[in-house]
Amino acid sequence: MCLKGRSTGMINTSTGLELDYLFHPGSIALAGASRDPAKRGNELIRGLLEAGYKGKIYPINPGAAEINGLPAYPSVSAVPGPVDYVISIVPVQAAKALAEECAAKGVKAIQFYTAGFSESGDPAMKKLEEEIVAIARGAGMRVIGPNCVGIYCPESGMVFHLGASREPGPVGFISQSGGNSEDLVWAAPTRGVYFSKAISFGNASDLNETDFLEYLVHDPATRVITGYLEGFKGGRRFVEQLGKAQGKKPVIILKGGRTEAGTRAVASHTGSLAGAARVWDALCHQYGVIQVCSLDELLDMAVAFQYMKTPKGRRVAIIGSGGGASVQAADDCETYGCPVPRLPEEARAELRTFTSEVGRFFSNPLDSPTRGWAPEQFERAIRIVLGQPEMDFLIVFIGMDITLFHHEGKKIRDRTSEALIQAAGRVSKPIVVVLKSGGTLEGCQAVLEQQAKLVEAGLPVYPSLPRAVSAASRLIQWHERAASQRAGG
Amino acid sequence: MCLKGRSTGMINTSTGLELDYLFHPGSIALAGASRDPAKRGNELIRGLLEAGYKGKIYPINPGAAEINGLPAYPSVSAVPGPVDYVISIVPVQAAKALAEECAAKGVKAIQFYTAGFSESGDPAMKKLEEEIVAIARGAGMRVIGPNCVGIYCPESGMVFHLGASREPGPVGFISQSGGNSEDLVWAAPTRGVYFSKAISFGNASDLNETDFLEYLVHDPATRVITGYLEGFKGGRRFVEQLGKAQGKKPVIILKGGRTEAGTRAVASHTGSLAGAARVWDALCHQYGVIQVCSLDELLDMAVAFQYMKTPKGRRVAIIGSGGGASVQAADDCETYGCPVPRLPEEARAELRTFTSEVGRFFSNPLDSPTRGWAPEQFERAIRIVLGQPEMDFLIVFIGMDITLFHHEGKKIRDRTSEALIQAAGRVSKPIVVVLKSGGTLEGCQAVLEQQAKLVEAGLPVYPSLPRAVSAASRLIQWHERAASQRAGG
Repeated sequence: MCLKGRSTGMINTSTGLELDYLFHPGSIALAGASRDPAKRGNELIRGLLEAGYKGKIYPINPGAAEINGLPAYPSVSAVPGPVDYVISIVPVQAAKALAEECAAKGVKAIQFYTAGFSESGDPAMKKLEEEIVAIARGAGMRVIGPNCVGIYCPESGMVFHLGASREPGPVGFISQSGGNSEDLVWAAPTRGVYFSKAISFGNASDLNETDFLEYLVHDPATRVITGYLEGFKGGRRFVEQLGKAQGKKPVIILKGGRTEAGTRAVASHTGSLAGAARVWDALCHQYGVIQVCSLDELLDMAVAFQYMKTPKGRRVAIIGSGGGASVQAADDCETYGCPVPRLPEEARAELRTFTSEVGRFFSNPLDSPTRGWAPEQFERAIRIVLGQPEMDFLIVFIGMDITLFHHEGKKIRDRTSEALIQAAGRVSKPIVVVLKSGGTLEGCQAVLEQQAKLVEAGLPVYPSLPRAVSAASRLIQWHERAASQRAGG
Repeated sequence: MCLKGRSTGMINTSTGLELDYLFHPGSIALAGASRDPAKRGNELIRGLLEAGYKGKIYPINPGAAEINGLPAYPSVSAVPGPVDYVISIVPVQAAKALAEECAAKGVKAIQFYTAGFSESGDPAMKKLEEEIVAIARGAGMRVIGPNCVGIYCPESGMVFHLGASREPGPVGFISQSGGNSEDLVWAAPTRGVYFSKAISFGNASDLNETDFLEYLVHDPATRVITGYLEGFKGGRRFVEQLGKAQGKKPVIILKGGRTEAGTRAVASHTGSLAGAARVWDALCHQYGVIQVCSLDELLDMAVAFQYMKTPKGRRVAIIGSGGGASVQAADDCETYGCPVPRLPEEARAELRTFTSEVGRFFSNPLDSPTRGWAPEQFERAIRIVLGQPEMDFLIVFIGMDITLFHHEGKKIRDRTSEALIQAAGRVSKPIVVVLKSGGTLEGCQAVLEQQAKLVEAGLPVYPSLPRAVSAASRLIQWHERAASQRAGG
């Protein structure tokens, strides 16, 4: 309660970036460091080293002189220099003593992996969580968590798991779930999505969703805000931040606890009150928050905002392989609110001058040749189709599986990607790519190989047409709304 | 028109299996065989050889003495013995002469890959298609297509692409799209779905959706009927077949041409009239046809009907890894109409006797230990959870990605699968498995490896929780309907 009051009182004088120091600590101590490579307390040290964290790393372990090549210390207070940031994986029973020690040491922030606090439902543990926050507040120290994985900031080399990308990007993520944070950070680079910061804050005992939302709204490195949220502690201030983001930075939220069972699970997970789904829906509607139903959909929207040029309208041209798939593509596009206009006869006549496959040309969708396009023909076809004033953007879908047994399959795939990249550089309208595979290992490999090239060239890539057109449609909706707000004042 | 009349006239005396001979020809000639390994006319020969087709294969090519090790013939009439079945990939201009030659030779059926007939919109080509059908009818020969890939029947070794599984199964597929047929047959085995027959019939100039539906309704090898359909030539007879299947064999249909653009694409694709979506919806509602929106969803339903025991009700228990993912799982299940009841306190107490991880137990969903279950504990937990009368079935979801960087990750994944398989053998209620990965290559590999084992053991596996619970929910709905029909008479 007090904290909420304090935070609210800060609004008017705030730059919104007061928490920036959390993402650039000069030193990190890991309380609960372990020599056992199977333990999180060892992985995290390796993670920081692998990610190129430039500050000092202090493994804290009373029984070890050295962990992963770094000198270890028996306690935080035994560390010779200052400690800016502490990651705690000590058991819950040891958490209060650690907080006291960190407060005395002048630590600026402590993040608790440690779980078993208020979310356990045990009043004693709830009280312990409150005591720790009180200790921290008394010393000007902030608390992230407990029951969370903390901060990923590739720019500074802060990570919460091994194998995290070192490349920073424009997407910010705030999350009440550590698992969701790990899964997203791990998967996103295959789609070309990179992060400014990802923050898992668990029980939100001190720093909460609103604090981090405010930071991301103001953070110049963050262009797209995404999040997995269960409860809302910030109240009115949270709504104010949504207002600030509106029309400037897209806010994409996966809300946990929309149903009765989900709400019950939320209480057990982070001790949050999930709140009524209807209230949340109304808030999203009012502030243009993009609601998603899964992490996949969240990632789809991040891909759209990171890579898709903004179409001038919703009318879509489709080029793809396979008659049935083309029919399906047309159905999917119109189902998701993107009309598929007929390609004018002159354009079709022009297409016929350089490709003569019988029975393959639709008036839109336009069916690709069975064995793929010759690059110059593909590029020419794209330019003709997108040259029509009827077309606002293009979806190209490519089936990987049919190329797998062709003895020149890889060549067909490579030259298709090259032609796409070339064409994309020469047209101003957006191109969205769908790489389809039925899910065999060869299919996955082929998709990932081509996806990496296309994403590198700045093209948005999706695994299915419904996911592509749904993302495009919602991107367009967001921009339409932003434009109408600008027009309306 | 005549054909329709003839077919309709056959109903009363029909066993429904009159077309069985199409799937077991004693000899196949490939008109348009090629020595070039890049050409379809070469791939198809290799496909038949690879699939172990036991009859005679006759490559037809006027300029080749031998193709893929088989003696080639200049024409169908030059083949020394009888020819039961002809696959044509000759150009459209040569199709009529081929039909005449086949009629004279006594061929029983001809399948035309060849496209460019009625679907081209050219009246002359429409007429040509009709002439070919007339020639065939005059000789008692049936036509499949044109503009299709024909028959896949693993039992007899008939295939339409390389790499098709040789394992037969209970799923029949009828399709107006060759590409959809190839994609489905190629992808399905990774999900454990195998086919009795898959038939691509394109323009349906002679044999149409109704003929093949009737066959599958009566075929004892087919327990689940799936299809991709664009138009309906069989009219009333089609509806009669749906009536026969109702409550006995599930019919799962992806309908192409539901929107204006989709309908236009259908006309270009197979020359079909897509018909009003509302009429189709009403028909599906009346006959309990399961409508799907994509091939993925079609496959999901086939997995459900092939592998899922029928739950007694909709109440679902959930065991999974990750707090946020558990919240999401609960939300997804209730959103798809499967309530997630609270686990009774006695069951939770029993679970606490052998697993003590703090803060991890929810009342349902039940959260898995971070590093996976010990097999005997997992099996015990499953038996406790499914032992509750409140629970009708169980969904287990497993995140692959968090195990990827654990140095014992593979061991964790393997023992989880083993425990699941063991538990599934000892409980009577259905278990559905979700193997999640964010889509990295390592993640795909891990999923495919475990999926293969689980499917081999007869467990239904899905790539996401919404897809799993949606399929389970529709399976339950189908059985509820069938039961109420049996009860109602």
